[in-house]
Amino acid sequence: MKKISILGSTGSIGTQTLDVVAMHPDQFQVEGLSAGANVDLLVEQARQFRPRKVSVGTKELADRIANDLPAGTQLYYGSEGLIEVAANTDADTVVTAVMGSVGLRSTLAALEAGKHIGLANKETLVTAGHLVTSLAKKRRLSLLPIDSEHSAILQCMNGEPERNVSRITLTASGGSFRNLTREQLSDVTVEDALKHPNWSMGAKITIDSATMVNKGLEVIEARWLFDLEYDQIDVLLHPESIIHSYVEFVDTSIVAQLGNPDMRVPIQYALTYPDRLPSPAQRLSLAQIGSLHFKEMDYDRYPSLRLAFECGKMGGTATTAFNAANEVAVARFLQGEISFLHIDRIIEQVIERHSSIALPDLGTIEQCDREVRELASRL
Amino acid sequence: MKKISILGSTGSIGTQTLDVVAMHPDQFQVEGLSAGANVDLLVEQARQFRPRKVSVGTKELADRIANDLPAGTQLYYGSEGLIEVAANTDADTVVTAVMGSVGLRSTLAALEAGKHIGLANKETLVTAGHLVTSLAKKRRLSLLPIDSEHSAILQCMNGEPERNVSRITLTASGGSFRNLTREQLSDVTVEDALKHPNWSMGAKITIDSATMVNKGLEVIEARWLFDLEYDQIDVLLHPESIIHSYVEFVDTSIVAQLGNPDMRVPIQYALTYPDRLPSPAQRLSLAQIGSLHFKEMDYDRYPSLRLAFECGKMGGTATTAFNAANEVAVARFLQGEISFLHIDRIIEQVIERHSSIALPDLGTIEQCDREVRELASRL
Repeated sequence: MKKISILGSTGSIGTQTLDVVAMHPDQFQVEGLSAGANVDLLVEQARQFRPRKVSVGTKELADRIANDLPAGTQLYYGSEGLIEVAANTDADTVVTAVMGSVGLRSTLAALEAGKHIGLANKETLVTAGHLVTSLAKKRRLSLLPIDSEHSAILQCMNGEPERNVSRITLTASGGSFRNLTREQLSDVTVEDALKHPNWSMGAKITIDSATMVNKGLEVIEARWLFDLEYDQIDVLLHPESIIHSYVEFVDTSIVAQLGNPDMRVPIQYALTYPDRLPSPAQRLSLAQIGSLHFKEMDYDRYPSLRLAFECGKMGGTATTAFNAANEVAVARFLQGEISFLHIDRIIEQVIERHSSIALPDLGTIEQCDREVRELASRL
Repeated sequence: MKKISILGSTGSIGTQTLDVVAMHPDQFQVEGLSAGANVDLLVEQARQFRPRKVSVGTKELADRIANDLPAGTQLYYGSEGLIEVAANTDADTVVTAVMGSVGLRSTLAALEAGKHIGLANKETLVTAGHLVTSLAKKRRLSLLPIDSEHSAILQCMNGEPERNVSRITLTASGGSFRNLTREQLSDVTVEDALKHPNWSMGAKITIDSATMVNKGLEVIEARWLFDLEYDQIDVLLHPESIIHSYVEFVDTSIVAQLGNPDMRVPIQYALTYPDRLPSPAQRLSLAQIGSLHFKEMDYDRYPSLRLAFECGKMGGTATTAFNAANEVAVARFLQGEISFLHIDRIIEQVIERHSSIALPDLGTIEQCDREVRELASRL
């Protein structure tokens, strides 16, 4: 029986993680759940899975549900509540499915408390890859990716000596606007942007797919997860999203992971690695798909992806700046405040003005994050 | 330093195995080489690789090269010579690249002598899978496939618990006549048949690709190599031969191995497994390939493939009969004696008349083989 806690249990990854748990009730026990504002769903989840601890965004929200929780479930709130669920339960593994840079402190706390991490919060590695990976290594804890691309890479590397890995390729669908030229992007709407062709995801990540910032964050994440140089990481356009990513070995052999788009598969793999369990996901039939297509990445069409590589190579706080600038820009686009193409411009202008600080500690990262957000909100 | 012997060193797989050895002179030492009639090439190989023992097809051929071999290379001939090279050298691994059913006794002798097997001789497992796999298991020796499809499966299964394998799919290019209907096959020529679209191989295997008998033999081989039921093995038409084969796991994840067609890669993998070494093979660019295509296997178009599954399920000597009938039929086609479609008919008629003997010993297998050959030469 594996004991897990989920940070961000009411979001897309969180609910699907609980779907996986519900499919294998004899394999998993839920120790803790944390949510932001969606307290009704959290109460429902708590009644179904009976965690020891839950946490919500604020004291006010906590007060609202205090009488609705099952007996034996303790209630916490705020950033301290998040830490409580992350670090102070009997969980072996903590799934970090909160969005944005708020996941960092709770992930570090979970690692300090000896928990393995099922990593769905990209920003953790993007902003503090050096801190998180060195802590995990020191404590001999696993950072198991939940992203389909990184899960694919993990599956392909499984059983292979690290020295045999030559390079990896992350596939990218191209996002909602992949059939538009850069010129045609100037007057796309929020509504258009939210229609992702292959995956049903949250709003922020759907926009990040359309700008290819999402792939940029994944490149940086891959660098830390698999201890690679940026020159060993490629991105390939693959509109069908059937090949989730692949590894090339020194003998030119490529090993790829394929499947229908269903996040429950990589979520479950992170919870069962290196073992597997049956899944109700739909089996892939390549004969039915008929054909798969591939195209060289176009870095002029997706300038923020090029910038992500550059920030990664710069290192230090550059990737924190990249991420914070994007978070603000996407929020402003979703609020109808700026145009779609303005997202790339804000990121670019932030990076132009940014002086990267090498090997930043947590305080420096958080200060950089705040300063960039302030700047990006004005550009 | 790995010590190897090669049975069939002057054939297509044999020469490419020596290419791999020549690329990594510090990794491999050649202990023995055996050839059939191509003694000039064998002498050349012996001079370059300085094996302790070589063997040729007949005493006459041996006499012809007796004075051309380097000092320190002992010369043998005939089936006893083949056994000498297979079993009585210091080799750790014996590559069995002889064609047809002659490989069986030498493979069993190599296993008895404690050698791991780099298996390129399909007929070994097709005719005596139960004997060969149980002997290898008893002696804790590896049967490492050299076929690109089985090497792909081995690479995809690497590091995975066996119980997690749900099924495997062997890909098939469709062979030289894949764009012709069955009706259009009635008057194709030997010359047409020998033009394989993706791989440059020997004549027999090229014909076997066009009839899909080759894939049938591979299915039977896979059943033994990976201890699967026939219902767990699929065949998929994939004209580009870029995905060499794949494994589906219980969680619906598919792991596939891809590459440009170059036999040096699977040969080398069999010699270095589970490690890898650099290879001069051309790297695969999916962006350059552009697209991959897949089609359900058509068992009416390729009736001998259906028959291979049926023989496999029948078990016993049925697969020996299938293989022997095909060997004779292909030889007769190559000699211009029968038409292309007659190959399938001969196999079918042989199997119709065959009474399978369960769990045959070596003598029974060889007797079945002789009887079927005699019958197939008259049909």
